[in-house]
Amino acid sequence: MTESHEKELNKDHFLHTFLNPRSIAVFGANNNLLTTMGSMQLRNIIAGGGFTNNIYPVHPRLETIQGFKAYKSIMDVPITPDLAFLILPTRAVPQVMEECGQKGIKNLLITSGGFREIGDEGVKLSEKIDTIARKHNIRFIGPNCLGIYNAWYGFPEKESSYINTFWPYATPKRGNISLISQSGTVAAQTFWHAKEMGVNISKSISIGNERNIDMVDFLHYFKNDPFTEVIGLYIEEIKRGKEFIKIVKEITPKKPIVAIYTGGTKAANRSIKSHTGSLSGNQKIYNAVFKDTGIIPTNSITDFLYYLRTLSFAQKYNVFMKDKRVGIITDSGGSGSMMAKTSELYGLEVPEFSAQLKAEISELIPFTASANNPIDVTFDVNFLNLFYKFPKILMKSGEVDSIIIWGLFDFNDVLETIESSGMIIDDNMKNMALMLDRSVLKPIKRLMKKFSIPVYFCGPFPYRFSWFQKFMSHDIPVFDFWDAPTKCLKILYKYSEYRKEHS
Amino acid sequence: MTESHEKELNKDHFLHTFLNPRSIAVFGANNNLLTTMGSMQLRNIIAGGGFTNNIYPVHPRLETIQGFKAYKSIMDVPITPDLAFLILPTRAVPQVMEECGQKGIKNLLITSGGFREIGDEGVKLSEKIDTIARKHNIRFIGPNCLGIYNAWYGFPEKESSYINTFWPYATPKRGNISLISQSGTVAAQTFWHAKEMGVNISKSISIGNERNIDMVDFLHYFKNDPFTEVIGLYIEEIKRGKEFIKIVKEITPKKPIVAIYTGGTKAANRSIKSHTGSLSGNQKIYNAVFKDTGIIPTNSITDFLYYLRTLSFAQKYNVFMKDKRVGIITDSGGSGSMMAKTSELYGLEVPEFSAQLKAEISELIPFTASANNPIDVTFDVNFLNLFYKFPKILMKSGEVDSIIIWGLFDFNDVLETIESSGMIIDDNMKNMALMLDRSVLKPIKRLMKKFSIPVYFCGPFPYRFSWFQKFMSHDIPVFDFWDAPTKCLKILYKYSEYRKEHS
Repeated sequence: MTESHEKELNKDHFLHTFLNPRSIAVFGANNNLLTTMGSMQLRNIIAGGGFTNNIYPVHPRLETIQGFKAYKSIMDVPITPDLAFLILPTRAVPQVMEECGQKGIKNLLITSGGFREIGDEGVKLSEKIDTIARKHNIRFIGPNCLGIYNAWYGFPEKESSYINTFWPYATPKRGNISLISQSGTVAAQTFWHAKEMGVNISKSISIGNERNIDMVDFLHYFKNDPFTEVIGLYIEEIKRGKEFIKIVKEITPKKPIVAIYTGGTKAANRSIKSHTGSLSGNQKIYNAVFKDTGIIPTNSITDFLYYLRTLSFAQKYNVFMKDKRVGIITDSGGSGSMMAKTSELYGLEVPEFSAQLKAEISELIPFTASANNPIDVTFDVNFLNLFYKFPKILMKSGEVDSIIIWGLFDFNDVLETIESSGMIIDDNMKNMALMLDRSVLKPIKRLMKKFSIPVYFCGPFPYRFSWFQKFMSHDIPVFDFWDAPTKCLKILYKYSEYRKEHS
Repeated sequence: MTESHEKELNKDHFLHTFLNPRSIAVFGANNNLLTTMGSMQLRNIIAGGGFTNNIYPVHPRLETIQGFKAYKSIMDVPITPDLAFLILPTRAVPQVMEECGQKGIKNLLITSGGFREIGDEGVKLSEKIDTIARKHNIRFIGPNCLGIYNAWYGFPEKESSYINTFWPYATPKRGNISLISQSGTVAAQTFWHAKEMGVNISKSISIGNERNIDMVDFLHYFKNDPFTEVIGLYIEEIKRGKEFIKIVKEITPKKPIVAIYTGGTKAANRSIKSHTGSLSGNQKIYNAVFKDTGIIPTNSITDFLYYLRTLSFAQKYNVFMKDKRVGIITDSGGSGSMMAKTSELYGLEVPEFSAQLKAEISELIPFTASANNPIDVTFDVNFLNLFYKFPKILMKSGEVDSIIIWGLFDFNDVLETIESSGMIIDDNMKNMALMLDRSVLKPIKRLMKKFSIPVYFCGPFPYRFSWFQKFMSHDIPVFDFWDAPTKCLKILYKYSEYRKEHS
């Protein structure tokens, strides 16, 4: 995706305003950021940097809220805001909705809980807000949701984001992945890990009880959203089955969808009932729907993030797998063997190399090393071979469709440790990290695009270490251990095939 | 395990000296820490703090190596060291072995590669070193290994460790988990993650080609090692099948064993052949052996570390599961539902609570919350309820055998964020982290031991955040996301049952 002014901004869709309100009324925020959820959310809206004088808090007593003039009633607000955001005690919601309707506000975000998920009384209250919405032609997200996030708010004029989920977290880099979630936690509390591992988010929607606006509505929006190239769903229940299947089938050939479905077991169904009030269904039916529509399912939140990241890179740089062959390059026999095994368990192939290719590699490695697949260079400090020369040879050979490299260390950390032992490290060595750009990262990315062969770099350090961050800052797929790469290639291969079949 | 002087130190076993040498000769180290593996290893031995003037480097030219006087030949060394460590070019190994034999050194650690893993010529060389070993009554680890690690070196007199694996890494806290690995990477490069997630290591052995000392030998040692209560194996091949099965069956009822077996697929077998020269076998045979002996198998390195950590805690505090019922307490419906689902998929139970128990909990939570299993407190800032009061009620009820709590945030990070928004945080709040000890961590640990019910705390932050580190420093099981807890409980339940059956 190129960040161009030319792109279609999907402005005609009714959800566009929800994600890009120019002005916003806030009900339920005060100045206590620690114990009031609405206050935290307002704080996040402010911190996003997209709003300046266009926030209108409404409060019966306070004069100012978090630096903004507060109004006793929505009727006193000098303009008609694009969106009203309600985080109020449940009983207060209908009255405030009614007032918003009278004010002419057409878009509401209702995070308050206490509706159908609590039983009969909540169902009645839900029907009441339906009536008010119909009367005033109001659309609303929620109730019982956590809010929304748009990393592209104000684009292209501004570098800002619109965050009204409840926690003051660090947001990931903005990217091409959009989430629609029937859980606020999946929509928002995944962000610490998403940031850590480079899962770059475009939009994230906590959709709650879906009383008025549902997942299908957002799928329609994301289908044409130029900032969304991969979609993640957290599903407890699908409300409009036929429409869901129809829109998903239109989307998946162009934009992959990864989904978590949590219903299907006894305790999960019970849990879901009390969470969003959904009646979840049989796992087999969901499996059939996912298979039929090309949705990639998982029960793991870690895998969910990894699969989204995998497909995000593939979409952004148009690097898909032409077939299922994996080439493994490693400086460690054990991790090489484990990745060879899991590749095969996941239905990928780790082909033996041709005599010619083996001969070409043999010349460049120690006699104790192995030139077969996996290539095991053993202890070899020539990281240019490992990171660039060998993958290039494999790409040119035509014998693999994907490459995994094990041996990414944090060289800065290594040098620091060695220096602290009293050895003198010269400037050339210290500049190695700087050289990475020129000598590895940019060239390997070019090769990936040229050959349409993904290269996954892995090593034993947690993501926060500097060389891992360096690779991530260049959008190079990097892994902090050797479990995830083969799993991710399996998903990339499956989606690459699906895409071919449906093109 | 209590760190007591009284304990049997397993000193009579021949491997004791390998792990606790009082003096050591080093072949193949110099002063270049960056490109010479032996130099890095010597650096680690020094950094461990256990050796002072008892290291004897041997080098044909250098006068001093990393601050130690170097000797031209082992014959010049004034004493007979307990252990000689050889990290030399392959061809030099037999001659040096012969000299060590003449000097009277009985224990060798040969990390040099280039033996049977490279084919016929290497096999001949292997036979040559066998002969020399027999002649001089030498036992040796390797060749083609990465070295060994003992976190308890010098205990109880010293707080030191003996590390001669190759990388200048940060070591985890010393603990009760010992590793025997046919891969140096699994033995050593897993330490960054082990440290990060609180996998506390006792010993780690990279055992290489097992030409003389093998996995069975170390299993015999660890069976009686009071510092080892959980064992992790990385297996490419089992050399003495019958002996392996016999010793493992003696161990597993008292000390659980987790194992990775990497053979069994085409490419994995090929990879293993070039790695340690092993001929790996059929997956089905290994599955049968693991089942018969109570070994817990996995193909994932992350799960391997998690399972070891899980059993480490259970062993140290004697907290096993009496049955398979899981109680889930959460402040988020989505993660609660996902954990309920995976619990059931893994064969655990998430029982509905009795009317009495539900009533008791209902009184303490908001009306929008759910008192059933999972207990979903929704947005509730009373972390004492979530972390202590509710698990205590569940324990007393007798309705669960294990508890998972979702809602562990890094409160320090939250307060910092809020303070940076301009709100004043009083000292009481700032002291919350300090209060944790008294009000949660110590009491919950007492309850876990009293009821033999494990409590797993989970939240959305990476492990490095302060509250996660705080919990870990108290040995409280903590998880940085919601995938691993249910998986770990499955393993703990399985092992708890196995232990009962074999007691």
